[in-house]
Amino acid sequence: MIDRVAVVGIGMTSFGKFLDRSVRNLSEEAVRDALSSAGLGPEQVDWVFFGNAASGIVTGQEMIRAQAALRFTGLAGKPMVNVENACASGSTAFHLAWQCVASGQAEVALVVGAEKLSHADKTVSFGAFTKAVDLEEELPSHVGAGSGSIFMDIYAEKTRRYMEATGTTAADLAQITVKSRHAGARNPLAQFRKETTVEEVLGGRMISAPLTLQMCSSIGDGAAAVVLCSPRIASTLTGCKPVWVKSSVLVSGFADATKPNAAGRAANAAYEAAGIGPNDIHVAEVHDATAPAEIFHYENLQFCAPGHGAELLRTGATAIGGRISVNPSGGLLSRGHPIGATGAAQIVELVLQLRGEAGERQRVGAKVALAENTGGQIGGDSAAAVVSILAV
Amino acid sequence: MIDRVAVVGIGMTSFGKFLDRSVRNLSEEAVRDALSSAGLGPEQVDWVFFGNAASGIVTGQEMIRAQAALRFTGLAGKPMVNVENACASGSTAFHLAWQCVASGQAEVALVVGAEKLSHADKTVSFGAFTKAVDLEEELPSHVGAGSGSIFMDIYAEKTRRYMEATGTTAADLAQITVKSRHAGARNPLAQFRKETTVEEVLGGRMISAPLTLQMCSSIGDGAAAVVLCSPRIASTLTGCKPVWVKSSVLVSGFADATKPNAAGRAANAAYEAAGIGPNDIHVAEVHDATAPAEIFHYENLQFCAPGHGAELLRTGATAIGGRISVNPSGGLLSRGHPIGATGAAQIVELVLQLRGEAGERQRVGAKVALAENTGGQIGGDSAAAVVSILAV
Repeated sequence: MIDRVAVVGIGMTSFGKFLDRSVRNLSEEAVRDALSSAGLGPEQVDWVFFGNAASGIVTGQEMIRAQAALRFTGLAGKPMVNVENACASGSTAFHLAWQCVASGQAEVALVVGAEKLSHADKTVSFGAFTKAVDLEEELPSHVGAGSGSIFMDIYAEKTRRYMEATGTTAADLAQITVKSRHAGARNPLAQFRKETTVEEVLGGRMISAPLTLQMCSSIGDGAAAVVLCSPRIASTLTGCKPVWVKSSVLVSGFADATKPNAAGRAANAAYEAAGIGPNDIHVAEVHDATAPAEIFHYENLQFCAPGHGAELLRTGATAIGGRISVNPSGGLLSRGHPIGATGAAQIVELVLQLRGEAGERQRVGAKVALAENTGGQIGGDSAAAVVSILAV
Repeated sequence: MIDRVAVVGIGMTSFGKFLDRSVRNLSEEAVRDALSSAGLGPEQVDWVFFGNAASGIVTGQEMIRAQAALRFTGLAGKPMVNVENACASGSTAFHLAWQCVASGQAEVALVVGAEKLSHADKTVSFGAFTKAVDLEEELPSHVGAGSGSIFMDIYAEKTRRYMEATGTTAADLAQITVKSRHAGARNPLAQFRKETTVEEVLGGRMISAPLTLQMCSSIGDGAAAVVLCSPRIASTLTGCKPVWVKSSVLVSGFADATKPNAAGRAANAAYEAAGIGPNDIHVAEVHDATAPAEIFHYENLQFCAPGHGAELLRTGATAIGGRISVNPSGGLLSRGHPIGATGAAQIVELVLQLRGEAGERQRVGAKVALAENTGGQIGGDSAAAVVSILAV
């Protein structure tokens, strides 16, 4: 396959709760660092894709989020598209930017994923997630029931069924968090950087059984930016080592739980388009919105057979030093999950891994990487899923 | 220039205030009619681009607007992207769909623009427009001042300066509305279908001087859908006459009033890309959010020299029977302006015109058409502008 699109710049803020930072302030830092790492100026950017999911709810800014956030970056006047796909907003922006460059519409495209979820009134932050389901068809059945967090309740119910069917234990789930915090402790930009133990995870506050507090991703703020370009431009940039996008696939969910899920369909199509299989992947960033979700995604991505996710975890194959390092950034659980930023942050991590610049969390010898990001909820499936495969 | 993208299907609901209709209900009708007019089924659609600006504010549905609105259309599972660009959301979705087909990513792409603005509480509807400006930098200077409608105040101020500089009169502005209502009376889907007079327009309630009620676009609901496809698919569709997209350009505004405006820059680039000039255009749909805006756009689109818009109007050249018919649908003023739907509705009208199917409002012999749609407000300019040129 011809390499048509290179990632040549990455930038990312610290992820965390920053009540004093705005979407603009976060975006400016990520954009500045991404362009600078590519050795490009804003005037060389042809197109901007801006992923954000919750500004309308948390800050009131709707409609022209990119234009407002980026007005002082030197990017004003460029084509800008504001993209939403719930927790997959950042990867949707990345996918469109890849399309834009792959098709020759742009030589240089910039992806920004930015989110400000923290709010002095916590109910505003948590309320955002009620907007990522189908309000007319599905929200009514959740209101007033369960933990108060729709998504945690959905994950919890699915997890209970999965544990029953496969023998996966609560300790297995806790081990995902232990692995995640171990990685987060090695990522200076991560929101949670303190190691934990299985006992500590299991002893935490129960959010929605069997999910304890540390098994759930948290409210956070942050931005990540990625610069993509054509091979022609990449060849002129001597200061950076290009990472190639081998494929990128976006699908939406069937509102029908009997059909294959969105993440699995996107992965199948991405493997096929890239001519790369699950056994070729050295490092992956997957959508661990909860601890069990990482196990589910081992299976969706065919890292193991259905029902064998916990076994794969127990072998250590998905740890930083393993055959297929999963979520070496700390993932959503520990790097953090400012929702619109997550898809772009996954790419940032994989580029570091493929360049061999991931320091203490480096998967040694990483040449092929996969990012998987899902968003929203519709009829028992993710509303959107994006899988992208990168390589050097 | 090679014709790479055809419009082969259009669908549109009535525009108006429909308190009992939802974004889903409106979208379903437009999608069904668009696919049916193309002779295609939902299973043949490769990609969906969904433009909506205000659902988050009016109904609470954010993040997965397309997936929720289209879940029962047979389109579930398809790649769907939720696009915002304020009043240019529909044309931004159209632009991305054109890119997607032009680049070979999709053989068939569906554009949906849908909006539900009416609400039992009118302050909710009007409040939506405060989210289309930069909340941090610009909203504070508007709150509590003027008419209560930020956009009407911005247009009014610009109009006063323009009238002073060019000798354009209030009667000229009223004449735009008279022309608009004349067209609307000939469009069975228009929100305002009753003819009016200059005296009636001038005698109406003053919203923000010199703009009277009938010089301002109104709150409305509606959806429009457009099917685009590759030449290969178009050649297999015997039931419809393809209209070709000659060019489509999206830009954002400079937050700097001393620079050329977004609409003018988009038009220049679209003319150049299409190899078509302003004198070649037979029919245009332009963004007349207010009556004077149509005059401004005559100039942005180079239908006349700067400052000579009112003269062009007075010649009758932009009436339905004129050399360059502008807004034969009734435009935003009379067809209506459900904001995310407008950009798609413009394409629907131009396709009817180019097919010779516009009935009483047909611009006879129309072969080349232009759509111009702007959105939001940043630093004295539109935040986004899209210009597309179509031809048969």
